[in-house]
Amino acid sequence: MKATIIAVGTELLMGKTVNTNSTYLSKELNDLGIDVLYHKVVGDNPKRLEETLLQSMKETDLIITTGGLGPTQDDLTKEIIARAFGKTLHMNEEVLEDLKAFFKKIDREMTDNNVRQAYFPEGARVIPNEKGTAPGFMLENEKNICISLPGPPREMKAMYRAQIKDILSSFSQDIIISQYVNLFGIGESSAEDMVKDLISEQSDPSIAIYAGNGVISFRLTTKAKSEEDGYNIIKPVKEEMASRFGSLVFSYDSTDFVKVFVEELMEKKLTISTAESCTGGLIAKMITDVSGASSVFERGYVTYSNNAKADELNVSEKTLEKFGAVSEETALEMVQGLYNKTKSNICISVTGIAGPDGGSKEKPVGLVYVGYGIDGDFSVKKLNLNGDRERIRRITAFSSLDLIRKRI
Amino acid sequence: MKATIIAVGTELLMGKTVNTNSTYLSKELNDLGIDVLYHKVVGDNPKRLEETLLQSMKETDLIITTGGLGPTQDDLTKEIIARAFGKTLHMNEEVLEDLKAFFKKIDREMTDNNVRQAYFPEGARVIPNEKGTAPGFMLENEKNICISLPGPPREMKAMYRAQIKDILSSFSQDIIISQYVNLFGIGESSAEDMVKDLISEQSDPSIAIYAGNGVISFRLTTKAKSEEDGYNIIKPVKEEMASRFGSLVFSYDSTDFVKVFVEELMEKKLTISTAESCTGGLIAKMITDVSGASSVFERGYVTYSNNAKADELNVSEKTLEKFGAVSEETALEMVQGLYNKTKSNICISVTGIAGPDGGSKEKPVGLVYVGYGIDGDFSVKKLNLNGDRERIRRITAFSSLDLIRKRI
Repeated sequence: MKATIIAVGTELLMGKTVNTNSTYLSKELNDLGIDVLYHKVVGDNPKRLEETLLQSMKETDLIITTGGLGPTQDDLTKEIIARAFGKTLHMNEEVLEDLKAFFKKIDREMTDNNVRQAYFPEGARVIPNEKGTAPGFMLENEKNICISLPGPPREMKAMYRAQIKDILSSFSQDIIISQYVNLFGIGESSAEDMVKDLISEQSDPSIAIYAGNGVISFRLTTKAKSEEDGYNIIKPVKEEMASRFGSLVFSYDSTDFVKVFVEELMEKKLTISTAESCTGGLIAKMITDVSGASSVFERGYVTYSNNAKADELNVSEKTLEKFGAVSEETALEMVQGLYNKTKSNICISVTGIAGPDGGSKEKPVGLVYVGYGIDGDFSVKKLNLNGDRERIRRITAFSSLDLIRKRI
Repeated sequence: MKATIIAVGTELLMGKTVNTNSTYLSKELNDLGIDVLYHKVVGDNPKRLEETLLQSMKETDLIITTGGLGPTQDDLTKEIIARAFGKTLHMNEEVLEDLKAFFKKIDREMTDNNVRQAYFPEGARVIPNEKGTAPGFMLENEKNICISLPGPPREMKAMYRAQIKDILSSFSQDIIISQYVNLFGIGESSAEDMVKDLISEQSDPSIAIYAGNGVISFRLTTKAKSEEDGYNIIKPVKEEMASRFGSLVFSYDSTDFVKVFVEELMEKKLTISTAESCTGGLIAKMITDVSGASSVFERGYVTYSNNAKADELNVSEKTLEKFGAVSEETALEMVQGLYNKTKSNICISVTGIAGPDGGSKEKPVGLVYVGYGIDGDFSVKKLNLNGDRERIRRITAFSSLDLIRKRI
């Protein structure tokens, strides 16, 4: 099956909104073995939308649209799709009742625009929207399937997960099984290099590589008659990858490195505290991004100045004078001071030069020391990072957690 | 002038990469008064790229492509564009010399693939790439202008700013002047409502509204014969907006709220410290995202547990027991304790329930208290926020800085 994803909305063409919907749907469709051939973005313009839709119906069998279903947009997408399929719009009584109930509940009057949200092309299957007022729909003829979803990503994604995924899966006789091998602490090209023989020799399961937020994910996908068959096809390749990558593998499902890390701490009932200089609170922020982190995260210090390092973490003036704030010695005293104060199982300290200013020949921008350890046993790791301030801080934060992950 | 932006790359259609290039270019083209009619994404497939390009050359006069210029992608984009314009590829000696020099500098061998990066369509104007090896180019005929840029956003943006912007501006007899009025602390629809008469009555300057990261930006754009004329056309509308929005306006240029805030602290030589519970280091992180923040940011505490609040900030056990950790009283003692310890000019404390767990009927998820003040004079602001954990933390952090901004 070949697909085009059409996003409708002038705000996308004005550069107001990034088109994350098409990215999300592309990844999901690829997971189901559906090839996405085109993304297209059209404004709220009936003529151009119709031309684009008719063109896409020639090029691909599946078309998914996002956006243009809201009450203020004159139901543009709905009318145009109906016309392209030679259908007219009809009132759907059930949807109308739902809408009435919704507006009663939020105690607001229902306008004529809202009533129009209950109209659908003849023969369409309505896709309920649990998180908003604009339902989606699916329309089919002999050649094409068109699925139309609202633009707000929260609504669109919920509808995809709850309904569209099953509908699309049912078009295929086979079951599509995808599994992941997620790595941290290696670059994309090095990771690819380590399994390039598998990638080139292997056609089933197919292997795709994704990179983002420091995580490298290999997706292994196969088509099979049953789930069990699918897992059996994937198993040897997955195990071969696991053995080659060893401790670089941090999960086989979630690609959220920090979440996996924090959940491991929760499971093992290990507490953690942080003392940050150049990352300025980023590590604490990342840990506490994870819901439930309060059961493991004890205390965080952002000690930017030498005074703060001395006051809070008991770093000696002598050390600061002799070796400087950015040094192995300071990182070690910071993490020791942190442990003495908090007695947390895991302690992390960071001191470095995030730039763009503050670097020197001896201590260039990107030089970072991470003090880390468990139950009072500490090491210091020196990092030499490239890139801008944002990247240096981000890589430092991820690396510090990864150092701990490899220890526990 | 009407434009289509074509992004070339299978990684976009696999959902590996979000197409931020098209969003960036759209905003920039709109700033120059150029209408973007379509975004299109095509994979590294010669036939589909050629069809898309030929179709776009019929639909719009300007076409900008991003991606497909790298040495491993067989210069796909370059060959197809040349063919669509009826041209052949020729070696550009100057580019070849630059490439040779580049590879000598990084001490790597130049491959045949790299040599191909020196070939361009006959008659093309080469656009140098300061940040990478693949130069871009521009090709014109009677009807169309095609500009081809590399895919990496850092390279593409630098080339746009350094060269493309001027080239595109030169196509217009008029100068396009854009100015911004940037607000914080108001929603998009309320902001629009306050100036809807201006938006509907006003055709020159045109008014566009952008929203992101809590910031609402009004862009005022006009065409004029000179810069001075342009500013004079914009001035009365800008002043009217400034007077209506009052203290909601935080800048007339940068839309980066935190950067503007931190730079104001630097200018006024005001120091700042933070004590965070539910935001878990986010406020410290946001402040220290700004380069040079070390001159104003003194110290940050992430005090998640009651113990930490008592130890570090001297919050009394009685207060924690009687009113709870999430209370006006605790927020006030936190910020007072922070000030006593740091004597920073500006102190901010935050305690609240970010969810999704931990809420109750009396203290629901989204209840947050912000303690804040200058030179020892403190207030507490109660917030009732909606949304998920990420949103509650983000809005809390922005709001706490905004409370300070309105005070200084």
